[in-house]
Amino acid sequence: MKDSDEFSFLKETFKSLGNQYFDSSEIIIGPGDDAGLVKNSQETVYSVDASVAGVHFPENLAAEHIAFRSLSTAASDVVACGGALKWVLVSLTTDRADLNWMKEFVKGLKDFSDEYSCPILGGDLSRGKQCNIAITVCGKLDQQNFMKRSGAEVGDKIFVTNELGLAKKGLEEIKLNPEDLDFTSKNISKFIRPKLHFNFGQEISHYANSCIDISDGLISDLGHICEASNVGAQLNADLIPVEGEIEDALTWGDDYELCFTVPSEMESKIESLGKKHGLKITQIGEITKTSEVEVFKDCRLVTFKKRGYNHFDE
Amino acid sequence: MKDSDEFSFLKETFKSLGNQYFDSSEIIIGPGDDAGLVKNSQETVYSVDASVAGVHFPENLAAEHIAFRSLSTAASDVVACGGALKWVLVSLTTDRADLNWMKEFVKGLKDFSDEYSCPILGGDLSRGKQCNIAITVCGKLDQQNFMKRSGAEVGDKIFVTNELGLAKKGLEEIKLNPEDLDFTSKNISKFIRPKLHFNFGQEISHYANSCIDISDGLISDLGHICEASNVGAQLNADLIPVEGEIEDALTWGDDYELCFTVPSEMESKIESLGKKHGLKITQIGEITKTSEVEVFKDCRLVTFKKRGYNHFDE
Repeated sequence: MKDSDEFSFLKETFKSLGNQYFDSSEIIIGPGDDAGLVKNSQETVYSVDASVAGVHFPENLAAEHIAFRSLSTAASDVVACGGALKWVLVSLTTDRADLNWMKEFVKGLKDFSDEYSCPILGGDLSRGKQCNIAITVCGKLDQQNFMKRSGAEVGDKIFVTNELGLAKKGLEEIKLNPEDLDFTSKNISKFIRPKLHFNFGQEISHYANSCIDISDGLISDLGHICEASNVGAQLNADLIPVEGEIEDALTWGDDYELCFTVPSEMESKIESLGKKHGLKITQIGEITKTSEVEVFKDCRLVTFKKRGYNHFDE
Repeated sequence: MKDSDEFSFLKETFKSLGNQYFDSSEIIIGPGDDAGLVKNSQETVYSVDASVAGVHFPENLAAEHIAFRSLSTAASDVVACGGALKWVLVSLTTDRADLNWMKEFVKGLKDFSDEYSCPILGGDLSRGKQCNIAITVCGKLDQQNFMKRSGAEVGDKIFVTNELGLAKKGLEEIKLNPEDLDFTSKNISKFIRPKLHFNFGQEISHYANSCIDISDGLISDLGHICEASNVGAQLNADLIPVEGEIEDALTWGDDYELCFTVPSEMESKIESLGKKHGLKITQIGEITKTSEVEVFKDCRLVTFKKRGYNHFDE
């Protein structure tokens, strides 16, 4: 095939990515028209997140991994609301016009689509100086199950899923040897393909008062819950399951685990849901009346240099 | 106010942009949570488009204009489907961290929101080397009124709205004096704030077989209709309303006027809709059995060096 024929083939491939899920996602018209057409028999949630080369992922990361990770980090917001993934839109700006790069990128899209049974509703392709992937995600849920950031109440128990800190170690490992990633490293897998806990998120949405995905660091993200809910939080550093340095684990982010708050009488319910889904669930503290997120270690208040990632910190 | 307070103020401003339209857009929860929550009493359409500095607009264009234009060019896809604008999501990657730039950008968002009574459902802000705005748009319509690209039929009359070619001239004028734009120039207004014909689009959707917005050039965009509909088109260059060089007008794009095809018995209906909406409507040709878009001038076939804008032409 000529290159131009292959590009046409890729375009057709893109149009049919995940089209076996069109019906379950209520998609009437998929990619290829001015817009995708969708029915909606439930309330829907929407979010957009950009992944930028050199900012969110190393510039020399393979296209397949860029695609999969960008989709995962954006779709994580649907998990945090308690939704089920319905579809995604992909806006790709790339400095690479070569066919192999595009093929790899499409492979990453396809893997994600298969992993989460998620159709791609449409996309946009631009040329630019810096690779930039903006992913729009749509999830479905019933309104009463939406886990708001503003729902935390004083006395709520605070939980996290799995461990924090792996993704930062994964990123460091990737930077050491970006061309040949060792996927037997759980840290690297964690950075590239953070597992999204859709089923667990939907189940806890019946019990949790608030929930957030940890993208910028536990302290910063729990801080968003506290600010929106007008409460504070006390964390016990000795309870928080971390890998590596505790400061990194609590302020770096990239782990895309869930932090959620639950009325204390629901504790045992949450623990049994963790078992059911094979997820490690740890109670790490409690919602308080203060307006701060405070971390205690051996009963002493610990302070960190920064709370989490901020794009506009100088 | 300290800069950091002003940034917080801007963040709050962003959250309330167009919130007077939340009810009419069925928005239950707007910006500030993990995702925006929406009811949907009709079918909905979705599209994403990126605008990249130095590619889609001049790098030194004021932030206000970047915001307004990015929203307009993305929302144009909803017009082309026959939809009404429901909401937008804004993903901004910027190399500018200064408060004034951000304020101007938010002003452009607000102007658009007011102009089209459109709420902003959410957004994302990243730092990057190249300004890149990915806009996701949602429109509402009834399924049977969706104007598909694949709906054109042999014998359909082809129409365009207004004139083609102004935006290219506008871009040239902007490049001559980017710091001090003269908005009395209809060309500059056309490039920065192309008028979106939402009401007209919704009305013709009852009669037109297919429709597209002219973003990449008439020949290229009409070519998308022909390809999707498995037909061709014959255009009469003498009828096409152009400003400037005809080749520029037919192959440049950026005008965001509509090109649509209508069964010949509906011609007069379309003309009266044009009058009703104060829009110039011109019949420029007919859908044919061939698979090409052919342009005739004085009964001779005209050929152009290129069909339209392609991001990956070398």
